[in-house]
Amino acid sequence: MLEQVSQSKVFGGWQKQYTHTSSTLNCTMRFAIFLPPGASQQNPVPVLYWLSGLTCTDENFMQKAGAFKKAAECGIAIVAPDTSPRGEQVPDDPQGQYDLGHGAGFYLDAVRLPWDQHYSMYSYVVKELPKLIETHFPVTSVRSISGHSMGGHGALTIGIKHSDDYRSVSAFSPICHPGACPWGQKAFRAYLGENRGLWLDYDAVELFKTRACTVPVLIDQGEADPFLEEQLKPEDLLAVINKQHPNFHYRSHPGYDHSYYFIQSFIGQHLEFHAKYLYPED
Amino acid sequence: MLEQVSQSKVFGGWQKQYTHTSSTLNCTMRFAIFLPPGASQQNPVPVLYWLSGLTCTDENFMQKAGAFKKAAECGIAIVAPDTSPRGEQVPDDPQGQYDLGHGAGFYLDAVRLPWDQHYSMYSYVVKELPKLIETHFPVTSVRSISGHSMGGHGALTIGIKHSDDYRSVSAFSPICHPGACPWGQKAFRAYLGENRGLWLDYDAVELFKTRACTVPVLIDQGEADPFLEEQLKPEDLLAVINKQHPNFHYRSHPGYDHSYYFIQSFIGQHLEFHAKYLYPED
Repeated sequence: MLEQVSQSKVFGGWQKQYTHTSSTLNCTMRFAIFLPPGASQQNPVPVLYWLSGLTCTDENFMQKAGAFKKAAECGIAIVAPDTSPRGEQVPDDPQGQYDLGHGAGFYLDAVRLPWDQHYSMYSYVVKELPKLIETHFPVTSVRSISGHSMGGHGALTIGIKHSDDYRSVSAFSPICHPGACPWGQKAFRAYLGENRGLWLDYDAVELFKTRACTVPVLIDQGEADPFLEEQLKPEDLLAVINKQHPNFHYRSHPGYDHSYYFIQSFIGQHLEFHAKYLYPED
Repeated sequence: MLEQVSQSKVFGGWQKQYTHTSSTLNCTMRFAIFLPPGASQQNPVPVLYWLSGLTCTDENFMQKAGAFKKAAECGIAIVAPDTSPRGEQVPDDPQGQYDLGHGAGFYLDAVRLPWDQHYSMYSYVVKELPKLIETHFPVTSVRSISGHSMGGHGALTIGIKHSDDYRSVSAFSPICHPGACPWGQKAFRAYLGENRGLWLDYDAVELFKTRACTVPVLIDQGEADPFLEEQLKPEDLLAVINKQHPNFHYRSHPGYDHSYYFIQSFIGQHLEFHAKYLYPED
């Protein structure tokens, strides 16, 4: 089932890549996993799921985030799936643009042709992938979730809807209000159609309008992010969140942009945040 | 002269890319620089030069090494040049392979046609680049040098020959004995010709045969490195070094490979090593 593609020792742990046949996505998928030193069947560790942004694969976070020193110290495994189904048989954007199709799954379950046979990243991330990980690796079923940009949107919406399954949620530069920005509207029209009722279920701003924030949330946003105003719209999220909610933390960082340089500057703090909830007894 | 290509804030400092016209290489060159927080004309900082390996550009180390947290703490700037001259007018390997021509300058001054008009990475790294950096950025002329694989070869040979100009030298997985391995022999034949007397000046093993190790050296090598036996040959270097030399430190790490996952695991220790010599008064 699982086929190992690569492995590298890092900070005393291991970064490994695998492929598997996904029954949810009807294609071969690759994912990466970091296992901290000491993880074993006798000493299983909790997992942080990381969802990447547009154009990324399972590799971007692993190579560029600089997360493993802290993850090794905290004893946290990290799993990074790809950002969409892939392969010749998987439909791609007919215009060949980066923000639809391959690399742009948007962590939802598509209902429209030709996308609906493969584009079910929501179900893949929430159901198939954790089951696979918990079957084959020395991990517990204790999970948190994080992501960047499109993946920040994924982490927030999944974390809000499944607050019993994830101990904590964090995001860098998330697409907070996809129903109100060009990236999100393009994806939602293609994958979900014009029925805006379907959009509400994949939009953090809409979800927070009707739900309390019961899971701890940490969001970091750079103020020099070129996508801030048109695509990310954190102010829309802040407007619907009770800002006094003790579980919700939003931080705005002068000078930082949308890149992995921003992520690597604060990923250590995100891991410490998640560790508090993944290891509450400590 | 200098044209800024990009900038990203990272760990309170800045990672920036520039292009300039190199009179040594007769082409436009790009380099990257990390400036730690607080670096200014009133508070100039020392510089670690980083030389990358085959196929790399100025970007690999900056994106993948995870070096900036420690460099920010230590107050060290990092400069990463490209690994060869570039451009349509710059000759490339006629066979189109990765280990000659573009991305494979080998940190030497070529003497043979068609390479001799552009391939002078040795002079570029030793003379033109530091002068440029020290003219345009808030740095001192206090320097150390490090690198990986082909860049480890560059750091060792340059550091040995210019021990007055560099306070310390380190290398990950260096090509220790290029005159005795396929990568080095191919490059030396092309760039320098069959006169092996010319080769000696760019070969760490040959240089150490006739020189004492007067500059502090730290070398890290992974034992699962697939290039270890055929290409890197650290045992040849250890055979000519007086192993009791207090300035020479060689460490062999079980399980680690040739990738940036190995580098990111130990780059913090390299920065601490260099900081001892870059800031000897502390």
